[in-house]
Amino acid sequence: MAKGSINVSVENIFPLIKKFLYSDHEIFLRELISNATDATLKLKHLTSIGEAKVAYGNPQIEVKIDKDNNTLHIIDQGIGMTAEEVEKYINQVAFSGAEEFLDKYKDSAKDSGIIGHFGLGFYSAFMVANKVEIITKSYLENEPAAHWTCDGSPEFTLEPHDKTERGTEIILHITEDDKAFLEESKISELLVKYNKFMPIPIKFGTKTETLPKPEGAKEEDPAPTQDVDNIINNPNPAWTKQPTDLEDEDYKSFYRELYPMQFEEPLFHIHLNVDYPFNLTGILYFPKMTNDLNVQKDRIQLYQNQVFVTDNVEGIVPEFLTMLRGVIDSPDIPLNVSRSYLQADGAVKKISSYITRKVADKLKSLFNNNREDFEKKWDDIKIVIEYGMLSEDKFFEKADAFALYPTVDGKYYTYDELYNAIKAKQTDKDDKLVILYASNKEEQHSYIESAKAKGYEVLLLDSPIVSHLMQKLETTKENISFARVDADHIDNLIKKDDTKISKLSEEEKTTLDELLKTVIPAEKFTVQLEAMDSDAAPFIITQPEFMRRMKEMQATGGGGMFGMGNMPDMYNLVVNTNHNLVSEILNTKTQKKQERLINQSLDLARLSQGLLKGEELTNFIKRSYDMIK
Amino acid sequence: MAKGSINVSVENIFPLIKKFLYSDHEIFLRELISNATDATLKLKHLTSIGEAKVAYGNPQIEVKIDKDNNTLHIIDQGIGMTAEEVEKYINQVAFSGAEEFLDKYKDSAKDSGIIGHFGLGFYSAFMVANKVEIITKSYLENEPAAHWTCDGSPEFTLEPHDKTERGTEIILHITEDDKAFLEESKISELLVKYNKFMPIPIKFGTKTETLPKPEGAKEEDPAPTQDVDNIINNPNPAWTKQPTDLEDEDYKSFYRELYPMQFEEPLFHIHLNVDYPFNLTGILYFPKMTNDLNVQKDRIQLYQNQVFVTDNVEGIVPEFLTMLRGVIDSPDIPLNVSRSYLQADGAVKKISSYITRKVADKLKSLFNNNREDFEKKWDDIKIVIEYGMLSEDKFFEKADAFALYPTVDGKYYTYDELYNAIKAKQTDKDDKLVILYASNKEEQHSYIESAKAKGYEVLLLDSPIVSHLMQKLETTKENISFARVDADHIDNLIKKDDTKISKLSEEEKTTLDELLKTVIPAEKFTVQLEAMDSDAAPFIITQPEFMRRMKEMQATGGGGMFGMGNMPDMYNLVVNTNHNLVSEILNTKTQKKQERLINQSLDLARLSQGLLKGEELTNFIKRSYDMIK
Repeated sequence: MAKGSINVSVENIFPLIKKFLYSDHEIFLRELISNATDATLKLKHLTSIGEAKVAYGNPQIEVKIDKDNNTLHIIDQGIGMTAEEVEKYINQVAFSGAEEFLDKYKDSAKDSGIIGHFGLGFYSAFMVANKVEIITKSYLENEPAAHWTCDGSPEFTLEPHDKTERGTEIILHITEDDKAFLEESKISELLVKYNKFMPIPIKFGTKTETLPKPEGAKEEDPAPTQDVDNIINNPNPAWTKQPTDLEDEDYKSFYRELYPMQFEEPLFHIHLNVDYPFNLTGILYFPKMTNDLNVQKDRIQLYQNQVFVTDNVEGIVPEFLTMLRGVIDSPDIPLNVSRSYLQADGAVKKISSYITRKVADKLKSLFNNNREDFEKKWDDIKIVIEYGMLSEDKFFEKADAFALYPTVDGKYYTYDELYNAIKAKQTDKDDKLVILYASNKEEQHSYIESAKAKGYEVLLLDSPIVSHLMQKLETTKENISFARVDADHIDNLIKKDDTKISKLSEEEKTTLDELLKTVIPAEKFTVQLEAMDSDAAPFIITQPEFMRRMKEMQATGGGGMFGMGNMPDMYNLVVNTNHNLVSEILNTKTQKKQERLINQSLDLARLSQGLLKGEELTNFIKRSYDMIK
Repeated sequence: MAKGSINVSVENIFPLIKKFLYSDHEIFLRELISNATDATLKLKHLTSIGEAKVAYGNPQIEVKIDKDNNTLHIIDQGIGMTAEEVEKYINQVAFSGAEEFLDKYKDSAKDSGIIGHFGLGFYSAFMVANKVEIITKSYLENEPAAHWTCDGSPEFTLEPHDKTERGTEIILHITEDDKAFLEESKISELLVKYNKFMPIPIKFGTKTETLPKPEGAKEEDPAPTQDVDNIINNPNPAWTKQPTDLEDEDYKSFYRELYPMQFEEPLFHIHLNVDYPFNLTGILYFPKMTNDLNVQKDRIQLYQNQVFVTDNVEGIVPEFLTMLRGVIDSPDIPLNVSRSYLQADGAVKKISSYITRKVADKLKSLFNNNREDFEKKWDDIKIVIEYGMLSEDKFFEKADAFALYPTVDGKYYTYDELYNAIKAKQTDKDDKLVILYASNKEEQHSYIESAKAKGYEVLLLDSPIVSHLMQKLETTKENISFARVDADHIDNLIKKDDTKISKLSEEEKTTLDELLKTVIPAEKFTVQLEAMDSDAAPFIITQPEFMRRMKEMQATGGGGMFGMGNMPDMYNLVVNTNHNLVSEILNTKTQKKQERLINQSLDLARLSQGLLKGEELTNFIKRSYDMIK
């Protein structure tokens, strides 16, 4: 039996890095600036614990383009490397420098925000450069600077250098194909995309600042100017601070920093800040939301130690919260993994439920502290809350305390308040509480009026997913049901024991029924004679709740009953036998006149339900113009 | 100056593979089956060129679960490896076996469909196994079988084995965490997902088949059964065949194979087949499409040499075609790269424009060969074509030959036909051709009728993006403009030289104008007196084209003029001074009666434009019931 050791041949590791590891060329800049940040933070840590005897000062990272020589420079004032360390950290690929460092300074290093990943980042430079130089001088005294050069083959050279300042300069000789990375606009774009909030100031060129005019200067004198470093990042973004150190205005201005093209202010924010059992900071914002579920995702940015990672947080944040905006920063989220893997990951699950809980707590406190304001915002946030109630049972339970049920008159109830307010009047003879609602105040106006005339409350529930939510409430709460105001005549929606007396005799009713059936097409309307108040409408068109809701649920995806989506709409025509017009129809002598009365009444009832359209509407209007004359 | 060679330490290559290279654990099975397929195809090639003296036979790949030993087995009957080759291909990581093979048998190998990528796939086994064994016997005579074992550390053992059949067996000792991969249902799911169309039959267990009853068997005798290999894949999917060898039914049945849950048949297909300057095969299907742009993407599957890669073809297929379904198979598409990289890649650009061209050609030939059928399908496919015309200029040009413009009466014109049909009647006095359209036959019924009464054609343009397309046509074609039928009174939409004589004197007009302005709110309607036919409607509400279209364009994203989306709707009230009712209004004595007439007429005009809603509609209906009585 032979034994041996698997050998990784280095000629093939570069194409591997190029092809697989970093599929996106532009990533190199993020990686190199992360390394520079890392080197600077290491120095900060060593000076803070007295290990390094040098002054930390105010180090920055500089990015420079040299178009004449086709080079890009990344220069830091960090810990630097000795020639020995270059050998160890650069020449030994896949040897993680940060890991060893963390091992050595374990506990004290944990809090200093050191980026500790694979040491491979540096090699991403070869994706855009055919030659890379490192000029570096260690913070250690008496160590000469080193100069490393490599053209992408495994061969390198290493020699002394006369650099005197502490830190590392990386020089990339950009390839012909990647010349775009020598354009100021391109580098500027990348720095803003990936490094906008990194913890060390990053200088890229200079900018001209206007100074105040000296005393005694004339009106027409130009203001003096000076060139200053152009710092592209904000090293101390709001989410890295303590909530107690921030005012409302700070959160708003950070929102503008995140979304410069966004003119509308966020409604409110949630500051996330936890360090056990996982580390996570961040700020989430509730923007104004519309009823369209599809278009408003991918606005939350994910960072790791202030380095931008992605703006796709699917799998990390519960789906209903992907409609929010803001920033999440956590070193505990595995990167480069698939969504299904993420969802199975224990840490990610905990993060997800922590975020859900924090959001629920925030909503509750907003509701408790300033209910009036919360009610004002309800319409803009309800889609998130209702979606959350549907998809996360934990959130559903918590939401009972702050989820609102608005009425068509602009009142807002919690569920318990609603229950108590309508219990007396809206409980039917079978002891079931009927919650009336409208989906559109305009379209269902006459039906709402009928319900209000009885002293009932009518909710206004108009989210696209509300039929699913009603279904969930009906199965969770006891002995309640939702009914849209136009699902039947109001006396049938909430059935009481008292029976209305009909003006018509049984015989007259039979005559009326037969007459109506000759005029009204049975395939469109089911005629239903009802003894109602004489001042209620003579004809009312209703659409039964069950079918309509099943169809709506199918339309908004999931739920409902299979195949219902394709069923035709079904309507009833309720005829009020106590209305004068109905008596008149019965008593009119010629059949032609009877038909005219029935048709005009039916058209008016259809108008009321939005069913009179196209040619029929045009004809109705023509007929009505004639009737004016 | 020191020189040296960069050293890759192998202890760190495994975590690298695990963490970065294959983020998704389940990928291991695809990789191992790809290797097995590769080994089988290599043998096929060698036997076909006479290099291998063995019979190729009907090799298959077997996947087996051994729950007792917690192992998963992948067994092929391919080329196999000698102990020396195991040393070379397995123990030298990142040494691409396929590449060397291709170099050696260059031209003859090109056509044999050999999967040639990094040889790293095998190591993905360690993502789910803590020990991997290879038992392999080469096709070469007199070479003993070899047995390689490795527990994921760089140490391995290699010893002879008594395996006698040609081929390779990989044995994975599945880790505790990955036990899911010992479930039959899980493996079956993965095989269907990734290997459904791989070129070598893949056996996974057995299934029971019913045989025909022997002659003379009694009615009640059970039919005999036998256990046969359960082959999970279709090694010869339709797209690998020549279009000439396929019937329409073959394409349909392949569609059902691809989308077993899809009940609707595709409208038509496009067979892609090109080998220069890039290699690409595939079949695209046009399904029935709705007007919702958002929900119907991600249905095209991307393969490489019959191995499933992804169902996200963004960047490869032009965006407007991501609404189609089907399969694309090309070894020339770079994998694991970002979208921005894909879009800059030359080969991908060519592929994308090839697909666009093929789709345009197919549509043209469908139109030419069976116009009637094409017209029938237009409504189901127009969204793709219109979107393509908007987003790809090449497609816009080609689409001129088959893009259809339907009328409200169900006629379908091409642009040129439309032009010729309406030129005579619909050219206005400034020599501009006015194309009339409606967005909704029902809602704009009365306006359509007015246009048709003049002998004009009215198009029915109801896609969500059609306002953008009209804008594009107006700037591309010469001297035309689109106008919705309710944008103004029809005589103003297409202005001719003839002037209508007004029944009213100038004085009467002034009186009428003043009277109307006292009743009609100026902030809602701009009153416009027009001398029209006496049988045209007395009051008409119109909405100017420009504003409405700008608002619509903003609503569907992009285009329009900034800020227009938030402007209120603007309407004109056109009053027909030649209508009797208008004379009657003027001649009515009491102001109260005049107001009643104006309000009722205004309400009817608003009804016609869908503007009478809510309380106003309820009141109108009540008033109208009273008028019946």
